[in-house]
Amino acid sequence: MNAQPIPSPAVRRLSLYLRHLEQLAAEGVKSVASNELAESLNVTAAQVRKDLGYFGQFGRPGVGYRVRVLIEELRRILGTDRTVNVILVGAGDLGRALLRYKGFRRKGFNLVAAFDVAPGKIGRAVGTVNVHNVSELPSIVRRHKVKLAVLAVPAEVAQETADMLAAAGIRGILNFAPATLHTDADLAVAPVDLAAHLEELSFRIGHHL
Amino acid sequence: MNAQPIPSPAVRRLSLYLRHLEQLAAEGVKSVASNELAESLNVTAAQVRKDLGYFGQFGRPGVGYRVRVLIEELRRILGTDRTVNVILVGAGDLGRALLRYKGFRRKGFNLVAAFDVAPGKIGRAVGTVNVHNVSELPSIVRRHKVKLAVLAVPAEVAQETADMLAAAGIRGILNFAPATLHTDADLAVAPVDLAAHLEELSFRIGHHL
Repeated sequence: MNAQPIPSPAVRRLSLYLRHLEQLAAEGVKSVASNELAESLNVTAAQVRKDLGYFGQFGRPGVGYRVRVLIEELRRILGTDRTVNVILVGAGDLGRALLRYKGFRRKGFNLVAAFDVAPGKIGRAVGTVNVHNVSELPSIVRRHKVKLAVLAVPAEVAQETADMLAAAGIRGILNFAPATLHTDADLAVAPVDLAAHLEELSFRIGHHL
Repeated sequence: MNAQPIPSPAVRRLSLYLRHLEQLAAEGVKSVASNELAESLNVTAAQVRKDLGYFGQFGRPGVGYRVRVLIEELRRILGTDRTVNVILVGAGDLGRALLRYKGFRRKGFNLVAAFDVAPGKIGRAVGTVNVHNVSELPSIVRRHKVKLAVLAVPAEVAQETADMLAAAGIRGILNFAPATLHTDADLAVAPVDLAAHLEELSFRIGHHL
Protein backbone atom coordinates (compact mmCIF):
# COMPACT_ATOMS: atom_id res chain seq x y z
CA MET A 1 0.00 0.00 0.00
CA ASN A 2 1.26 3.40 -1.02
CA ALA A 3 1.44 5.98 1.81
CA GLN A 4 0.41 8.83 -0.53
CA PRO A 5 -3.14 10.09 0.12
CA ILE A 6 -5.44 8.99 -2.69
CA PRO A 7 -7.55 11.79 -4.20
CA SER A 8 -11.32 11.29 -3.85
CA PRO A 9 -11.98 11.40 -7.62
CA ALA A 10 -9.47 8.57 -8.08
CA VAL A 11 -11.31 6.48 -5.47
CA ARG A 12 -14.59 7.13 -7.25
CA ARG A 13 -13.07 6.05 -10.52
CA LEU A 14 -12.02 2.73 -8.95
CA SER A 15 -15.75 1.97 -8.62
CA LEU A 16 -16.25 2.80 -12.29
CA TYR A 17 -13.34 0.58 -13.34
CA LEU A 18 -14.73 -2.23 -11.21
CA ARG A 19 -18.22 -1.77 -12.63
CA HIS A 20 -16.91 -1.94 -16.19
CA LEU A 21 -14.63 -4.92 -15.48
CA GLU A 22 -17.55 -6.83 -13.94
CA GLN A 23 -19.49 -6.19 -17.12
CA LEU A 24 -16.56 -7.43 -19.23
CA ALA A 25 -16.26 -10.54 -17.05
CA ALA A 26 -19.98 -11.23 -17.53
CA GLU A 27 -19.36 -11.06 -21.29
CA GLY A 28 -16.50 -13.57 -20.98
CA VAL A 29 -13.71 -11.07 -21.69
CA LYS A 30 -10.40 -12.24 -20.16
CA SER A 31 -8.14 -9.20 -20.52
CA VAL A 32 -8.44 -5.52 -21.34
CA ALA A 33 -5.97 -2.82 -22.41
CA SER A 34 -5.84 0.40 -20.38
CA ASN A 35 -6.85 2.19 -23.62
CA GLU A 36 -10.06 0.22 -23.89
CA LEU A 37 -10.87 0.62 -20.21
CA ALA A 38 -10.22 4.36 -20.49
CA GLU A 39 -12.33 4.88 -23.60
CA SER A 40 -15.32 3.08 -22.17
CA LEU A 41 -15.26 5.41 -19.14
CA ASN A 42 -14.49 8.67 -20.96
CA VAL A 43 -11.09 9.11 -19.27
CA THR A 44 -7.53 8.89 -20.63
CA ALA A 45 -5.39 5.75 -20.51
CA ALA A 46 -2.82 7.74 -18.51
CA GLN A 47 -5.51 8.45 -15.93
CA VAL A 48 -6.37 4.75 -15.64
CA ARG A 49 -2.70 3.84 -15.15
CA LYS A 50 -2.21 6.62 -12.61
CA ASP A 51 -5.35 5.71 -10.62
CA LEU A 52 -4.43 2.03 -10.45
CA GLY A 53 -0.77 2.89 -9.89
CA TYR A 54 -1.60 4.18 -6.40
CA PHE A 55 -2.22 0.59 -5.40
CA GLY A 56 0.38 -1.39 -7.30
CA GLN A 57 1.37 -2.66 -10.71
CA PHE A 58 -1.57 -4.58 -12.14
CA GLY A 59 -1.19 -4.39 -15.94
CA ARG A 60 1.39 -6.03 -18.16
CA PRO A 61 2.83 -4.27 -21.23
CA GLY A 62 1.27 -5.62 -24.43
CA VAL A 63 -1.22 -7.74 -22.48
CA GLY A 64 -3.13 -5.19 -20.43
CA TYR A 65 -5.11 -6.07 -17.33
CA ARG A 66 -6.42 -9.53 -16.58
CA VAL A 67 -10.09 -8.87 -15.90
CA ARG A 68 -10.68 -11.40 -13.12
CA VAL A 69 -7.48 -10.49 -11.28
CA LEU A 70 -8.15 -6.75 -11.43
CA ILE A 71 -11.74 -7.28 -10.22
CA GLU A 72 -10.42 -9.13 -7.18
CA GLU A 73 -7.78 -6.50 -6.50
CA LEU A 74 -10.26 -3.63 -6.78
CA ARG A 75 -12.74 -5.36 -4.47
CA ARG A 76 -9.95 -5.91 -1.96
CA ILE A 77 -8.90 -2.24 -2.20
CA LEU A 78 -12.51 -1.05 -1.80
CA GLY A 79 -13.12 -3.46 1.06
CA THR A 80 -15.96 -5.24 -0.73
CA ASP A 81 -14.16 -8.57 -1.16
CA ARG A 82 -16.33 -9.64 1.77
CA THR A 83 -19.95 -8.73 2.56
CA VAL A 84 -20.18 -5.28 4.16
CA ASN A 85 -23.03 -4.77 6.62
CA VAL A 86 -24.94 -1.49 6.35
CA ILE A 87 -27.84 0.03 8.28
CA LEU A 88 -30.38 2.57 7.10
CA VAL A 89 -31.85 5.31 9.27
CA GLY A 90 -35.13 6.95 8.26
CA ALA A 91 -37.71 4.61 6.74
CA GLY A 92 -39.66 7.34 4.95
CA ASP A 93 -40.32 7.66 1.27
CA LEU A 94 -36.75 7.59 0.08
CA GLY A 95 -35.53 5.29 2.86
CA ARG A 96 -38.04 2.60 1.98
CA ALA A 97 -37.07 2.93 -1.65
CA LEU A 98 -33.41 2.44 -0.82
CA LEU A 99 -34.27 -0.63 1.27
CA ARG A 100 -35.84 -2.19 -1.84
CA TYR A 101 -32.98 -1.17 -4.11
CA LYS A 102 -31.12 -4.28 -5.26
CA GLY A 103 -28.03 -2.45 -6.47
CA PHE A 104 -26.39 -2.33 -3.02
CA ARG A 105 -26.50 -6.08 -2.51
CA ARG A 106 -25.18 -6.75 -5.99
CA LYS A 107 -22.02 -4.84 -5.00
CA GLY A 108 -21.51 -6.64 -1.69
CA PHE A 109 -23.45 -4.38 0.68
CA ASN A 110 -25.93 -6.06 3.01
CA LEU A 111 -28.64 -3.91 4.60
CA VAL A 112 -29.01 -5.63 7.97
CA ALA A 113 -31.54 -3.32 9.61
CA ALA A 114 -33.49 -0.09 9.25
CA PHE A 115 -34.41 2.39 11.98
CA ASP A 116 -37.09 4.98 12.50
CA VAL A 117 -38.83 6.83 15.33
CA ALA A 118 -42.40 6.60 13.99
CA PRO A 119 -44.44 3.96 15.86
CA GLY A 120 -46.32 3.17 12.64
CA LYS A 121 -43.12 2.12 10.91
CA ILE A 122 -41.34 0.28 13.72
CA GLY A 123 -41.80 -3.48 13.69
CA ARG A 124 -42.64 -3.63 10.00
CA ALA A 125 -40.50 -5.04 7.23
CA VAL A 126 -39.62 -3.22 4.02
CA GLY A 127 -38.64 -5.85 1.49
CA THR A 128 -36.49 -8.20 3.55
CA VAL A 129 -35.32 -5.59 6.07
CA ASN A 130 -36.97 -4.99 9.46
CA VAL A 131 -37.56 -1.47 10.77
CA HIS A 132 -36.46 -1.10 14.40
CA ASN A 133 -36.85 1.58 17.00
CA VAL A 134 -33.84 3.85 16.82
CA SER A 135 -33.17 3.02 20.49
CA GLU A 136 -32.05 -0.44 19.35
CA LEU A 137 -29.47 1.02 16.98
CA PRO A 138 -26.35 0.83 19.19
CA SER A 139 -26.83 -2.83 20.06
CA ILE A 140 -27.62 -3.88 16.48
CA VAL A 141 -24.62 -1.94 15.16
CA ARG A 142 -22.42 -3.71 17.68
CA ARG A 143 -23.85 -7.15 17.03
CA HIS A 144 -23.43 -6.94 13.24
CA LYS A 145 -20.16 -4.96 13.37
CA VAL A 146 -21.72 -2.27 11.17
CA LYS A 147 -19.47 0.61 10.10
CA LEU A 148 -21.60 2.15 7.32
CA ALA A 149 -24.98 3.85 7.51
CA VAL A 150 -27.38 5.24 4.93
CA LEU A 151 -28.99 8.39 6.28
CA ALA A 152 -32.44 9.18 4.87
CA VAL A 153 -33.98 11.28 7.64
CA PRO A 154 -35.47 14.79 7.26
CA ALA A 155 -32.92 17.62 7.08
CA GLU A 156 -33.97 18.99 10.48
CA VAL A 157 -32.79 15.89 12.36
CA ALA A 158 -29.85 14.93 10.12
CA GLN A 159 -27.12 16.40 12.34
CA GLU A 160 -28.36 14.90 15.60
CA THR A 161 -28.84 11.55 13.88
CA ALA A 162 -25.30 11.70 12.50
CA ASP A 163 -23.96 12.46 15.99
CA MET A 164 -25.85 9.47 17.35
CA LEU A 165 -24.46 7.26 14.58
CA ALA A 166 -20.92 8.42 15.34
CA ALA A 167 -21.43 7.64 19.03
CA ALA A 168 -22.65 4.15 18.08
CA GLY A 169 -19.43 3.47 16.19
CA ILE A 170 -20.50 4.20 12.61
CA ARG A 171 -17.52 5.35 10.52
CA GLY A 172 -19.12 6.25 7.18
CA ILE A 173 -22.43 7.87 6.26
CA LEU A 174 -24.12 7.94 2.87
CA ASN A 175 -26.15 11.10 3.42
CA PHE A 176 -29.39 11.56 1.48
CA ALA A 177 -30.71 14.19 3.90
CA PRO A 178 -30.56 17.63 2.25
CA ALA A 179 -28.30 19.03 4.98
CA THR A 180 -24.57 19.57 5.36
CA LEU A 181 -23.25 17.42 8.22
CA HIS A 182 -20.58 18.63 10.59
CA THR A 183 -18.63 15.60 11.73
CA ASP A 184 -15.23 14.67 13.10
CA ALA A 185 -12.50 13.78 10.63
CA ASP A 186 -12.77 10.08 11.48
CA LEU A 187 -16.36 9.93 10.23
CA ALA A 188 -16.52 9.85 6.43
CA VAL A 189 -19.56 11.40 4.77
CA ALA A 190 -20.66 10.97 1.15
CA PRO A 191 -23.48 13.41 0.40
CA VAL A 192 -26.09 12.52 -2.25
CA ASP A 193 -28.57 15.31 -2.89
CA LEU A 194 -30.79 14.06 -5.71
CA ALA A 195 -32.56 17.38 -6.27
CA ALA A 196 -29.20 19.20 -6.37
CA HIS A 197 -28.11 16.94 -9.24
CA LEU A 198 -31.22 17.99 -11.18
CA GLU A 199 -30.46 21.63 -10.36
CA GLU A 200 -26.96 21.19 -11.79
CA LEU A 201 -28.43 19.76 -14.99
CA SER A 202 -31.00 22.54 -15.14
CA PHE A 203 -28.16 25.06 -14.84
CA ARG A 204 -26.03 23.34 -17.46
CA ILE A 205 -28.76 23.15 -20.09
CA GLY A 206 -29.83 26.74 -19.36
CA HIS A 207 -26.29 28.01 -19.77
CA HIS A 208 -25.26 25.70 -22.63
CA LEU A 209 -22.38 24.13 -20.71
CA MET B 1 -23.87 37.02 -17.01
CA ASN B 2 -20.17 36.40 -16.94
CA ALA B 3 -18.73 34.73 -20.08
CA GLN B 4 -16.23 32.69 -18.04
CA PRO B 5 -17.08 28.99 -17.87
CA ILE B 6 -18.35 28.09 -14.39
CA PRO B 7 -16.61 25.07 -12.82
CA SER B 8 -18.93 22.15 -12.04
CA PRO B 9 -18.11 22.12 -8.29
CA ALA B 10 -19.13 25.80 -8.10
CA VAL B 11 -22.47 24.99 -9.74
CA ARG B 12 -23.02 22.17 -7.26
CA ARG B 13 -22.27 24.54 -4.38
CA LEU B 14 -24.96 26.93 -5.67
CA SER B 15 -27.47 24.20 -4.82
CA LEU B 16 -26.00 23.90 -1.33
CA TYR B 17 -26.15 27.67 -0.80
CA LEU B 18 -29.75 27.69 -2.00
CA ARG B 19 -30.66 24.77 0.25
CA HIS B 20 -29.19 26.50 3.28
CA LEU B 21 -30.75 29.87 2.43
CA GLU B 22 -34.16 28.23 2.07
CA GLN B 23 -33.69 26.77 5.54
CA LEU B 24 -32.72 30.20 6.92
CA ALA B 25 -35.77 31.77 5.25
CA ALA B 26 -38.00 29.14 6.83
CA GLU B 27 -36.52 30.14 10.20
CA GLY B 28 -37.31 33.80 9.49
CA VAL B 29 -33.69 34.89 9.01
CA LYS B 30 -33.47 38.02 6.82
CA SER B 31 -29.76 38.34 6.07
CA VAL B 32 -26.63 36.24 6.35
CA ALA B 33 -22.90 37.01 6.28
CA SER B 34 -20.72 35.07 3.82
CA ASN B 35 -18.81 33.79 6.89
CA GLU B 36 -21.94 32.21 8.35
CA LEU B 37 -23.02 30.76 5.01
CA ALA B 38 -19.52 29.35 4.52
CA GLU B 39 -19.24 27.80 7.97
CA SER B 40 -22.57 26.05 7.74
CA LEU B 41 -21.47 24.40 4.49
CA ASN B 42 -17.88 23.56 5.47
CA VAL B 43 -16.35 25.89 2.86
CA THR B 44 -14.43 29.17 3.20
CA ALA B 45 -16.02 32.61 2.99
CA ALA B 46 -13.68 33.35 0.07
CA GLN B 47 -15.11 30.34 -1.74
CA VAL B 48 -18.67 31.58 -1.21
CA ARG B 49 -17.79 35.03 -2.55
CA LYS B 50 -15.96 33.54 -5.53
CA ASP B 51 -18.80 31.13 -6.41
CA LEU B 52 -21.44 33.83 -6.24
CA GLY B 53 -19.12 36.31 -7.92
CA TYR B 54 -19.42 34.41 -11.19
CA PHE B 55 -22.98 35.68 -11.41
CA GLY B 56 -22.83 39.19 -10.03
CA GLN B 57 -22.46 41.21 -6.88
CA PHE B 58 -25.08 40.03 -4.40
CA GLY B 59 -23.68 40.82 -0.95
CA ARG B 60 -23.20 44.19 0.70
CA PRO B 61 -20.17 44.92 2.94
CA GLY B 62 -21.16 44.85 6.60
CA VAL B 63 -24.68 43.61 5.77
CA GLY B 64 -24.04 40.34 3.97
CA TYR B 65 -26.58 38.70 1.74
CA ARG B 66 -30.30 39.34 1.91
CA VAL B 67 -31.70 35.83 2.19
CA ARG B 68 -34.88 36.25 0.09
CA VAL B 69 -33.08 38.13 -2.67
CA LEU B 70 -30.26 35.61 -2.91
CA ILE B 71 -32.75 32.71 -2.99
CA GLU B 72 -34.52 34.32 -5.95
CA GLU B 73 -31.25 35.01 -7.72
CA LEU B 74 -29.99 31.46 -7.21
CA ARG B 75 -33.26 29.97 -8.47
CA ARG B 76 -33.06 32.17 -11.53
CA ILE B 77 -29.45 31.13 -12.14
CA LEU B 78 -30.31 27.44 -11.71
CA GLY B 79 -33.41 27.78 -13.90
CA THR B 80 -35.76 26.64 -11.13
CA ASP B 81 -37.54 29.97 -10.69
CA ARG B 82 -40.31 28.30 -12.70
CA THR B 83 -41.50 24.69 -12.58
CA VAL B 84 -39.20 22.41 -14.58
CA ASN B 85 -40.82 19.38 -16.21
CA VAL B 86 -38.96 16.08 -15.94
CA ILE B 87 -39.62 12.56 -17.20
CA LEU B 88 -38.41 9.27 -15.77
CA VAL B 89 -37.45 6.24 -17.85
CA GLY B 90 -37.39 2.80 -16.26
CA ALA B 91 -40.16 2.15 -13.73
CA GLY B 92 -38.34 -0.66 -11.92
CA ASP B 93 -37.37 -0.81 -8.30
CA LEU B 94 -35.38 2.39 -8.14
CA GLY B 95 -37.47 4.21 -10.75
CA ARG B 96 -40.68 3.68 -8.81
CA ALA B 97 -38.93 4.88 -5.67
CA LEU B 98 -37.81 8.05 -7.40
CA LEU B 99 -41.34 8.65 -8.67
CA ARG B 100 -42.54 8.67 -5.06
CA TYR B 101 -39.67 10.85 -3.84
CA LYS B 102 -41.04 14.24 -2.78
CA GLY B 103 -37.68 16.02 -2.79
CA PHE B 104 -37.76 16.76 -6.52
CA ARG B 105 -41.09 18.60 -6.39
CA ARG B 106 -40.01 20.62 -3.36
CA LYS B 107 -37.18 22.05 -5.46
CA GLY B 108 -39.35 22.93 -8.45
CA PHE B 109 -39.07 19.75 -10.51
CA ASN B 110 -42.30 18.21 -11.77
CA LEU B 111 -42.26 14.57 -12.88
CA VAL B 112 -44.80 14.65 -15.70
CA ALA B 113 -44.56 11.06 -16.92
CA ALA B 114 -42.72 7.78 -16.56
CA PHE B 115 -41.86 5.27 -19.27
CA ASP B 116 -41.15 1.57 -19.43
CA VAL B 117 -41.23 -1.28 -21.92
CA ALA B 118 -42.77 -3.93 -19.63
CA PRO B 119 -46.47 -4.52 -20.45
CA GLY B 120 -47.15 -5.15 -16.73
CA LYS B 121 -45.98 -1.65 -15.82
CA ILE B 122 -47.45 0.37 -18.70
CA GLY B 123 -50.79 2.01 -17.97
CA ARG B 124 -50.30 1.94 -14.20
CA ALA B 125 -49.66 4.90 -11.93
CA VAL B 126 -46.84 5.18 -9.40
CA GLY B 127 -47.87 7.77 -6.86
CA THR B 128 -49.34 10.49 -9.06
CA VAL B 129 -47.30 9.68 -12.18
CA ASN B 130 -48.53 7.46 -15.02
CA VAL B 131 -46.26 4.90 -16.65
CA HIS B 132 -46.42 5.05 -20.45
CA ASN B 133 -45.10 2.88 -23.23
CA VAL B 134 -41.70 4.21 -24.24
CA SER B 135 -43.09 4.63 -27.78
CA GLU B 136 -45.11 7.59 -26.48
CA LEU B 137 -42.00 9.33 -25.16
CA PRO B 138 -41.26 11.66 -28.09
CA SER B 139 -44.78 13.08 -28.22
CA ILE B 140 -45.04 13.55 -24.44
CA VAL B 141 -41.61 15.22 -24.32
CA ARG B 142 -42.71 17.58 -27.06
CA ARG B 143 -46.08 18.34 -25.52
CA HIS B 144 -44.67 19.16 -22.07
CA LYS B 145 -41.48 20.79 -23.40
CA VAL B 146 -39.40 18.41 -21.29
CA LYS B 147 -35.63 18.91 -21.34
CA LEU B 148 -34.58 16.77 -18.34
CA ALA B 149 -34.85 13.01 -17.84
CA VAL B 150 -34.14 10.68 -14.96
CA LEU B 151 -32.68 7.44 -16.30
CA ALA B 152 -33.29 4.37 -14.12
CA VAL B 153 -33.07 1.55 -16.65
CA PRO B 154 -30.78 -1.51 -16.42
CA ALA B 155 -27.14 -0.87 -17.39
CA GLU B 156 -27.43 -3.01 -20.54
CA VAL B 157 -29.96 -0.67 -22.16
CA ALA B 158 -28.73 2.63 -20.71
CA GLN B 159 -26.81 3.78 -23.79
CA GLU B 160 -29.56 3.04 -26.31
CA THR B 161 -32.10 4.71 -24.03
CA ALA B 162 -29.88 7.79 -23.70
CA ASP B 163 -29.56 7.94 -27.51
CA MET B 164 -33.34 7.74 -27.81
CA LEU B 165 -33.74 10.52 -25.22
CA ALA B 166 -31.28 12.73 -27.11
CA ALA B 167 -33.20 12.13 -30.35
CA ALA B 168 -36.42 13.13 -28.57
CA GLY B 169 -34.90 16.47 -27.56
CA ILE B 170 -33.82 15.74 -23.99
CA ARG B 171 -30.85 17.93 -23.01
CA GLY B 172 -29.93 16.65 -19.54
CA ILE B 173 -29.93 13.16 -17.99
CA LEU B 174 -29.75 12.26 -14.32
CA ASN B 175 -28.26 8.79 -14.78
CA PHE B 176 -28.90 6.16 -12.11
CA ALA B 177 -28.04 3.28 -14.45
CA PRO B 178 -24.66 1.82 -13.46
CA ALA B 179 -23.16 2.52 -16.89
CA THR B 180 -21.01 5.27 -18.38
CA LEU B 181 -22.96 7.07 -21.11
CA HIS B 182 -21.32 8.30 -24.28
CA THR B 183 -23.21 11.35 -25.45
CA ASP B 184 -22.73 14.45 -27.56
CA ALA B 185 -21.47 17.59 -25.84
CA ASP B 186 -24.91 19.22 -25.98
CA LEU B 187 -26.42 16.50 -23.77
CA ALA B 188 -25.48 17.00 -20.10
CA VAL B 189 -25.20 13.90 -17.93
CA ALA B 190 -25.08 13.78 -14.11
CA PRO B 191 -24.21 10.25 -13.00
CA VAL B 192 -25.46 8.97 -9.64
CA ASP B 193 -24.17 5.51 -8.79
CA LEU B 194 -25.52 4.78 -5.30
CA ALA B 195 -23.46 1.63 -4.79
CA ALA B 196 -20.30 3.45 -5.91
CA HIS B 197 -20.85 6.01 -3.14
CA LEU B 198 -20.93 3.18 -0.60
CA GLU B 199 -17.77 1.74 -2.15
CA GLU B 200 -16.06 5.09 -1.69
CA LEU B 201 -17.07 5.15 1.98
CA SER B 202 -15.95 1.56 2.39
CA PHE B 203 -12.58 2.52 0.93
CA ARG B 204 -12.25 5.61 3.09
CA ILE B 205 -12.99 3.86 6.36
CA GLY B 206 -10.72 0.96 5.41
CA HIS B 207 -7.84 3.28 4.60
CA HIS B 208 -8.47 5.82 7.36
CA LEU B 209 -8.98 8.73 4.97
